[in-house]
Amino acid sequence: MTEKAEMVEEMIRQLGDDAVLHRKEDLLTYECDGLTVYRGMPLAVVFPSSTEEVSGVVKWLHEHEIPFIPRGAGTGLSGGATPFGGEVIISLVRMKRLLDVDYDNREAVVQPGYINLTLTNSITHKGFYYAPDPSSQACCTIGGNVAENAGGAHCLKYGVTTNHVLGLEVVLHNGEIVEIGGVPDAPGYDLMGLVTGSEGTLGIVTSITVRILKNPEAEETAMAYFDSVEDASYAVSGIIAAGIVPAAIEMMDEIAIQGVERATNPVGHPEGSKAVLIMEVDGIATGIEEQIEEMVSVCERHNVVDIKVAKNDRERGRWWANRKTAFGAMGAISPAYLVQDGVIPRSRLSEVLAHIADISAESGLRIANVFHAGDGNLHPLILFDARNEGETDLALDVGSRTLEACTAVGGSITGEHGVGIEKKEDMRLVFSDEEIERQITVRSVFNPHNLLNLDKQFPKPARCGEVKQAVGSGEAHQVAEQR
Amino acid sequence: MTEKAEMVEEMIRQLGDDAVLHRKEDLLTYECDGLTVYRGMPLAVVFPSSTEEVSGVVKWLHEHEIPFIPRGAGTGLSGGATPFGGEVIISLVRMKRLLDVDYDNREAVVQPGYINLTLTNSITHKGFYYAPDPSSQACCTIGGNVAENAGGAHCLKYGVTTNHVLGLEVVLHNGEIVEIGGVPDAPGYDLMGLVTGSEGTLGIVTSITVRILKNPEAEETAMAYFDSVEDASYAVSGIIAAGIVPAAIEMMDEIAIQGVERATNPVGHPEGSKAVLIMEVDGIATGIEEQIEEMVSVCERHNVVDIKVAKNDRERGRWWANRKTAFGAMGAISPAYLVQDGVIPRSRLSEVLAHIADISAESGLRIANVFHAGDGNLHPLILFDARNEGETDLALDVGSRTLEACTAVGGSITGEHGVGIEKKEDMRLVFSDEEIERQITVRSVFNPHNLLNLDKQFPKPARCGEVKQAVGSGEAHQVAEQR
Repeated sequence: MTEKAEMVEEMIRQLGDDAVLHRKEDLLTYECDGLTVYRGMPLAVVFPSSTEEVSGVVKWLHEHEIPFIPRGAGTGLSGGATPFGGEVIISLVRMKRLLDVDYDNREAVVQPGYINLTLTNSITHKGFYYAPDPSSQACCTIGGNVAENAGGAHCLKYGVTTNHVLGLEVVLHNGEIVEIGGVPDAPGYDLMGLVTGSEGTLGIVTSITVRILKNPEAEETAMAYFDSVEDASYAVSGIIAAGIVPAAIEMMDEIAIQGVERATNPVGHPEGSKAVLIMEVDGIATGIEEQIEEMVSVCERHNVVDIKVAKNDRERGRWWANRKTAFGAMGAISPAYLVQDGVIPRSRLSEVLAHIADISAESGLRIANVFHAGDGNLHPLILFDARNEGETDLALDVGSRTLEACTAVGGSITGEHGVGIEKKEDMRLVFSDEEIERQITVRSVFNPHNLLNLDKQFPKPARCGEVKQAVGSGEAHQVAEQR
Repeated sequence: MTEKAEMVEEMIRQLGDDAVLHRKEDLLTYECDGLTVYRGMPLAVVFPSSTEEVSGVVKWLHEHEIPFIPRGAGTGLSGGATPFGGEVIISLVRMKRLLDVDYDNREAVVQPGYINLTLTNSITHKGFYYAPDPSSQACCTIGGNVAENAGGAHCLKYGVTTNHVLGLEVVLHNGEIVEIGGVPDAPGYDLMGLVTGSEGTLGIVTSITVRILKNPEAEETAMAYFDSVEDASYAVSGIIAAGIVPAAIEMMDEIAIQGVERATNPVGHPEGSKAVLIMEVDGIATGIEEQIEEMVSVCERHNVVDIKVAKNDRERGRWWANRKTAFGAMGAISPAYLVQDGVIPRSRLSEVLAHIADISAESGLRIANVFHAGDGNLHPLILFDARNEGETDLALDVGSRTLEACTAVGGSITGEHGVGIEKKEDMRLVFSDEEIERQITVRSVFNPHNLLNLDKQFPKPARCGEVKQAVGSGEAHQVAEQR
């Protein structure tokens, strides 16, 4: 019996026939996640329904030294759930129950396959919601959010996933089940913070206790148009400097605006607008008006062309739906695109956007910008056509150069999408070899044989002339992809 | 030459004559920190003035396998800076410079010996402040705050130290100097979160980049008196349930009120009050009044006896000064006291306070309660007289029992004081042996020879009949101490 056949037989024995995919045609879907330019063929995909099933699967794979990858909805944008080739994917989508809600102490317990937005929908009748809101929130899972430490538009005020995780149940590399956190302010080392954002390299999260928040009494949203991204950038700095803590400040530039107007939720952005800010404040009802007025007056000081406040929840919802289609909308104006995810000090916004414009001009590739301006989290969208010889390589190179532009001003290579496959080599922009080795040493405590999401997140030890695409130890290959 | 003499000679060679204490009479001060019931004699105390000097000292001690303890102002309450006996204390008090302030990006860089309140005082003219505010903020150091992940009254709204640390420079066990964090949302593992709160066991922090906040436009403070801690507890839950996020909600019970009225900042709390709440809201000016009014009405629903709002900043300042003397004030009503630091889910406040009252009645020791009610962080103050045979032991035992009362409802053994020496054995209340071993394995990545704050924070591997006081590997001994 071949090794694969033996593994498949054992997985079926443990999980049942309907919980194992192993035929090539069934595996194609799992060759990549939301980052479609890298692909690798998994050995199999398994669908455990409980913590015990995850534990049993991991125990067997650990004993047989077969690497494995936890996967949520596969919406990740850095290739965290993409195989290099030959791994078993452990899909958590069948573990999608809401286990408990404690409104008094503002906690909810969910399984990892539970959909982000479903949590808010399930508790909204009691006046509560779950704050982290990635654009993919209607389909991404909270387990995936924990793995990538996902952010979202409202993280400016409310923080990213790690600020909302209170406890984790984790299956370790050998199948052992442990609880981390769960008590308020757990003493000892912050292992919960360590696991959150570890992209599945330290364990498989099988239950998550999250903080839930009371709905704000009032919300107001304004949309402001500018003749330049510089003016919009200075308006963002001005709003923060005025002491307002908005729930969100999002920016889209001209190309992004063109995209969203051609996509599924157009809202009639004026033709030719160079930049739009979507600004939201929330909190107690009294005082909201004053904050919006102050934001309006800051925008006026920075040459705003037009500014309007959403008339009601319906209009506000339409504006956000428009903004949240921005990535996908690139498909309407380009055959393919690559999303980047850099972070910069907020005061350097204008300068870095100018640098990115230069990179665009030099490379000949258009770059749209749609991003969380309030916390300096840029998302350059690099538009390209993979049918043109070498243009996928060029787009990847341009992506790395936008990250270099971020790190050059003291920024970072990821704000919310994670490192995954895509930015393994870019880790060298922010860490020395020694620092990377130290992180790998920490990994080895929890993942001694590198079977848990094999070779993700960290580059190989430095070697001269290493080609960026030759990542990992497996066979993942960069693909020419058309949308 | 004896080993100690050789070490002293080398330290003087590296740091100069005025930077080394080694005579017994000079070392007495360093036998303990703010937790005075455990003491141990250090081998020497050294005072480096720069990161390089810390590095040089650590390198030599590492090579000679001499354990060492970083120390800030020595205000810690769990014995984190207390020697077991035979360690070298590395005092960071000479590294007390403010290195940089970046108002645009709201960051400040300080050396570890920089005093917490001095930071706020240094930036207040620009309208900024540093949020974490332990009661000892006028003398504790930010380095010590990082080591213990210190909290404070306003952490209900603003979070504890770890939520305000943006980057660290750390001297590792072998003297190597590394930067951790420093870039926004650093990719890879959250080592900054790991080091924050690690009580000096993972490295010596030599520079800290912290978030600074804009002063709120307005603040209002109310003081409410109740006939029972139950009513006050339900008022706290009611305020949170009303959707208000106060900057602080502090509670003092009858004994604590008697104490602060006999201490240095009495404010005339009514005789016989069973509980007082100090409630503060801050933010934009509009809306503050409504929040105070809503808090008043919640208190009225829970049988408040009297409630008043501070007339001005001066009165507010006096109220806070009164509250912040509460620990020390115990000296006015008891020969000695022990502070505990448990955390519970907010909804269990009333129940756990009743349990603590039972423990007090059973043991015959009075227990005062003064605490951060809004985030469920209790500080039982156990009053005792060490001149009575066995009463120090009894107080320590009562302290552990209050922690058991917290963990029994899903709480924890420390909210902001750390584990140190005091709560090493209490770690077993929240962690299994396997979980503790896993944390020690993580420690071994950064502290392979256990020289960095030797044996702190974690219990020894479980042994039957082990006596709590026999902590650590050194000679620290519990002392009978009088105030």
